[in-house]
Amino acid sequence: MTNEVVSAAMLAIGDELLSGRTKDKNIGHLADILTAVGIDLKEVRIVPDEEDRIVEALNALRGAYDYVFTSGGIGPTHDDITADAISKAFGVPCEHDAKAMKLMGDNYAARGMEFTESRQRMARMPRGAVHIDNPVSTAPGFNIGNVYVMAGVPSIFQAMLDNVIPTLRVGKQLLSRSVNCPFGEGTIAIPLRDIQAAHPDTIIGSYPKYENNRFSTELVVRARDEDKLAAAEQAVRAMVEQLASGKQI
Amino acid sequence: MTNEVVSAAMLAIGDELLSGRTKDKNIGHLADILTAVGIDLKEVRIVPDEEDRIVEALNALRGAYDYVFTSGGIGPTHDDITADAISKAFGVPCEHDAKAMKLMGDNYAARGMEFTESRQRMARMPRGAVHIDNPVSTAPGFNIGNVYVMAGVPSIFQAMLDNVIPTLRVGKQLLSRSVNCPFGEGTIAIPLRDIQAAHPDTIIGSYPKYENNRFSTELVVRARDEDKLAAAEQAVRAMVEQLASGKQI
Repeated sequence: MTNEVVSAAMLAIGDELLSGRTKDKNIGHLADILTAVGIDLKEVRIVPDEEDRIVEALNALRGAYDYVFTSGGIGPTHDDITADAISKAFGVPCEHDAKAMKLMGDNYAARGMEFTESRQRMARMPRGAVHIDNPVSTAPGFNIGNVYVMAGVPSIFQAMLDNVIPTLRVGKQLLSRSVNCPFGEGTIAIPLRDIQAAHPDTIIGSYPKYENNRFSTELVVRARDEDKLAAAEQAVRAMVEQLASGKQI
Repeated sequence: MTNEVVSAAMLAIGDELLSGRTKDKNIGHLADILTAVGIDLKEVRIVPDEEDRIVEALNALRGAYDYVFTSGGIGPTHDDITADAISKAFGVPCEHDAKAMKLMGDNYAARGMEFTESRQRMARMPRGAVHIDNPVSTAPGFNIGNVYVMAGVPSIFQAMLDNVIPTLRVGKQLLSRSVNCPFGEGTIAIPLRDIQAAHPDTIIGSYPKYENNRFSTELVVRARDEDKLAAAEQAVRAMVEQLASGKQI
């Protein structure tokens, strides 16, 4: 365990996410998993199936964060251009990978299916890339540099991510505690601000809910140090109890 | 109606979206609404509650697209820093808006509640900004330049967006037709690529589904011109029928 912070970004690729046709499920899943293992997801971008836009976003993100995870665009059809775009971003050729050709060729043969030119497109990756195994449907994702390229279909994205996670360097986990608060943000803002100021090594977030015509709040305290977390959580709970008892703060 | 393309981006602001605590619902809603009215959502970014990151992303997006829509960070608590960050991005002071102070002051008075300093924080906006009415809970969003700043709570985001949409310039709608295809992408990739090449003013997307251990595909044809859309859709349907009848393509 280390105190180090390890940062990450996600690049979700696909016109369908921007048209509303598909509601993304991978961002929230990646966020959950990275938080659980101690990697801080710090930025997400969604871009269309356009090479220049993928290249530009990828180069911005891979320079700014420890890891970048992408979803989408690695299938066999003409709108699947992620492997080409990643190759261009890294300045290396995109070519049929021998190991992927073998794996996929064997798989199609076992199923009595032809390993067509278009299916072979899924074996293309940037020169020097390393496979990310796809236990669902064989066609692999890949890793090059600090970039992990995975499928957009959620069940396959999740399976590929399960294979990637154990290989990553992780930081000290950002621990989190929630306190339910029956008061709206307007009531708690000033005492909460003072608690944040008194606990500088924690991050205190306030998340309003609006249900049945009234606001309540979920207060979330985060810290990498268990003692500091507990102290800030205790201060937040004391504030909520004091308000609930009708005392002025 | 015009042939013009009107572009937009979204900037979703909030640590909770990146930690996985909150699964974003606003991106998909905005995508649906913009597509319906004829504005093309071309990029989405999610950034944390950090001023520099908000300023940097906002300035990149507002220079690149016709409109930018933001969600989150306009409440009364210390982690609500969107109004300050937007002001900084535009180089103007962030100050209490007179109309917002009046509206909110009257609203709290009518409810017998004190209009505290922290509640007054929600009346702050960049100098020169125009209100976006909040029919749910009064505290307004705002518009400055080509940027529309709205709440993160989905019911309030949606209500604010309803107020904004009629004020926007729209382009010619990108029409869309879906064709269900019982074959996986590997089977259709080459004929589909040829159909795309023969219908250059359309965008043909292929979206794999993986259910019950087999792949199928949803093929989506998009175009701004109804005749070109119909021609490409017809070609896609003919391809699927030909494959279903067992004929070689």
